Amino acid sequence: MIYLDNAATSFPKPNIVYDEIYRCMREYCANPGRSGHKMSLASAIAVQEARETISKFFNIRNPLQIAFTKNATEALNIIIQGTARAGCHIIATSMEHNSILRPLKELEKKGIAEVSIVWGNETGQIDPASIKRLIKSNTSLIICTLSSNVNGIIMPIEEIGKLAAEYNIPFLLDAAQGAGSINIDVEKMNITYMAFPGHKGLMGPQGTGGLYIKEGMFVKPLLKGGTGSFSSSLDQPEIMPDLHESGTLNLPGIVGLKAGIEFINGLGIENIKLYKNMLLKRLYEGIKEIDGVKIYSKMNINENSGILALNIFDCDSTEIAEILSSKYNIAVRGGYHCAPLAHKTLGTEKQGLVRFSLGCFNTIEDIDYTIKAIREISSQYSK
Amino acid sequence: MIYLDNAATSFPKPNIVYDEIYRCMREYCANPGRSGHKMSLASAIAVQEARETISKFFNIRNPLQIAFTKNATEALNIIIQGTARAGCHIIATSMEHNSILRPLKELEKKGIAEVSIVWGNETGQIDPASIKRLIKSNTSLIICTLSSNVNGIIMPIEEIGKLAAEYNIPFLLDAAQGAGSINIDVEKMNITYMAFPGHKGLMGPQGTGGLYIKEGMFVKPLLKGGTGSFSSSLDQPEIMPDLHESGTLNLPGIVGLKAGIEFINGLGIENIKLYKNMLLKRLYEGIKEIDGVKIYSKMNINENSGILALNIFDCDSTEIAEILSSKYNIAVRGGYHCAPLAHKTLGTEKQGLVRFSLGCFNTIEDIDYTIKAIREISSQYSK
Repeated sequence: MIYLDNAATSFPKPNIVYDEIYRCMREYCANPGRSGHKMSLASAIAVQEARETISKFFNIRNPLQIAFTKNATEALNIIIQGTARAGCHIIATSMEHNSILRPLKELEKKGIAEVSIVWGNETGQIDPASIKRLIKSNTSLIICTLSSNVNGIIMPIEEIGKLAAEYNIPFLLDAAQGAGSINIDVEKMNITYMAFPGHKGLMGPQGTGGLYIKEGMFVKPLLKGGTGSFSSSLDQPEIMPDLHESGTLNLPGIVGLKAGIEFINGLGIENIKLYKNMLLKRLYEGIKEIDGVKIYSKMNINENSGILALNIFDCDSTEIAEILSSKYNIAVRGGYHCAPLAHKTLGTEKQGLVRFSLGCFNTIEDIDYTIKAIREISSQYSK
Repeated sequence: MIYLDNAATSFPKPNIVYDEIYRCMREYCANPGRSGHKMSLASAIAVQEARETISKFFNIRNPLQIAFTKNATEALNIIIQGTARAGCHIIATSMEHNSILRPLKELEKKGIAEVSIVWGNETGQIDPASIKRLIKSNTSLIICTLSSNVNGIIMPIEEIGKLAAEYNIPFLLDAAQGAGSINIDVEKMNITYMAFPGHKGLMGPQGTGGLYIKEGMFVKPLLKGGTGSFSSSLDQPEIMPDLHESGTLNLPGIVGLKAGIEFINGLGIENIKLYKNMLLKRLYEGIKEIDGVKIYSKMNINENSGILALNIFDCDSTEIAEILSSKYNIAVRGGYHCAPLAHKTLGTEKQGLVRFSLGCFNTIEDIDYTIKAIREISSQYSK
């Protein structure tokens, strides 16, 4: 199958990811941080090394400020639910995923938080000035995605971070789309909290993700339970990362995530960006003049994390996705991508969008074949 | 290493578990339930097949009543936090793990729930009559572990379930210790909710676990987010399992868990129980008369899930565990096992316990070597 659904999960992963997971499971996979025997220690060291790899990757000073989660959704929920206090005000953008919008909706329903949505322009771009206008004295959190999971548009994170810092408001970055091909520097970008999945651009396996919390910030945990530390206390330990890591960690997954990031470091994040952009441009050039094709993604390398979203005439996007799969063996995602307000922003709330999301293992042949497929499909719907 | 720490996580796993995880990752690992293309569908089918395997294993009628979690701790937190209402009363036992005690402590601190602890006898055994005496008109949940993670004692689950049903009180079973070698029948045992880890007796990988919720019961979710369903709605869908499965699932892990359970089915749960018991008895017989060895586990096959907990004279249990690892290459867990009240029950809150937890891959040679090691260590501490 020609896999162009990397925004859902990257496929394939680098061989080293598969192999390190397999080796971990076969050779030393005990419970990290629980017992004190050699295998448990080797497991704990593997977790710590992964924390260090991730912290270097994002320029995080203290690796212990990273907590592993099962996915980005868990990390986002921890921050959103764990920092909300009665009477608080939260600003988020219309381009956010349901992993942010649904917890926010719940806080609104419960009467805990007031939520303001900053709407993107017709391309989904967010203007930091619009965020600024919404800031109030009780604004407790600003949330923005690194790039849209619908059309790939990259947000002005550094500017938003600067604004948040200026007003002394914590800033939560959702790095689900773009981490691995867009450089993230939590210091330079003034990021207070960051959620990231392991299984997308970072090339790790599913079942991994993480949370960064700036030193000095306290976030109430969602889960309480065994941490392997302070074992005889009934209270959840307040030290990081134990505070947010209750229960057994996904050690093979974490080892795989480390291998994925090392693979990225080996290629160079800039090279991945350039390569994906070359493919994206080729796809764009190949389809932009096809009758009925309407493109919803920007093509500037600094404005797109690797997604081309389109519609063909007024066809239902899931129907086009289905034809691409069944007839052409091409994997894309149609529909709404769990981001309802993003579709409202782009004006596609009725039709959805056909999303082609590229990964670093896609080839020029994949793209050329996809162009041919789009051309054929379009010609069938042409009047 | 001779691995006798299976209560922390089982090691090794059956080869089929490693191989199925590897094959999933390499061949078809897309995002289940998100996109509609062939790989995504194959992924969704794999998840559904795992749900079916698990439901048959526990005699659960509707596989959709199982939600996958990252570990048992997440599942326990979902039930404990998601069912608590202001003014409720919860009964739990002194043999519970911190994954239960810490969330309960938090509910008490917040003034939401009143918690009653039923104390086990000197072997940790719980008397259902003691639970009965604590039931009040506002009792909203009874929680009991299937077997203790400290000394292996098996609880009278069927009797407790019957009692709970009689009083129409929901019953939460923590199946973290024992699932895989003790038969669980949610219908026969009157279980309303069950939390289970994938990576212990069920022989799956870390990063897996699950939650069973009886049909008709509604539990508020901890996480809200993308479920792949009702993608254009800002509200969390209330259908199972989507309600409790926000964010990308750990597909390779779930596939591995399915393979683990199939391995157990192949061997037969009764045979695993008998084999582990044979090893346990051999260990017990080999050490029971050693000078200074005090054993805290019962040896009846129907009262022990596969753990031998001991102390040697008044030595610190973590020191003994450390010697077993460094000098003898034997992996056990000393200390408190994240179960502070269990140690109070057993009278070991100062010394902790050295826990030898057996798995179905342990051999007679492992046991005989361990007996020799305990004898040598004991002789060194003998006066």
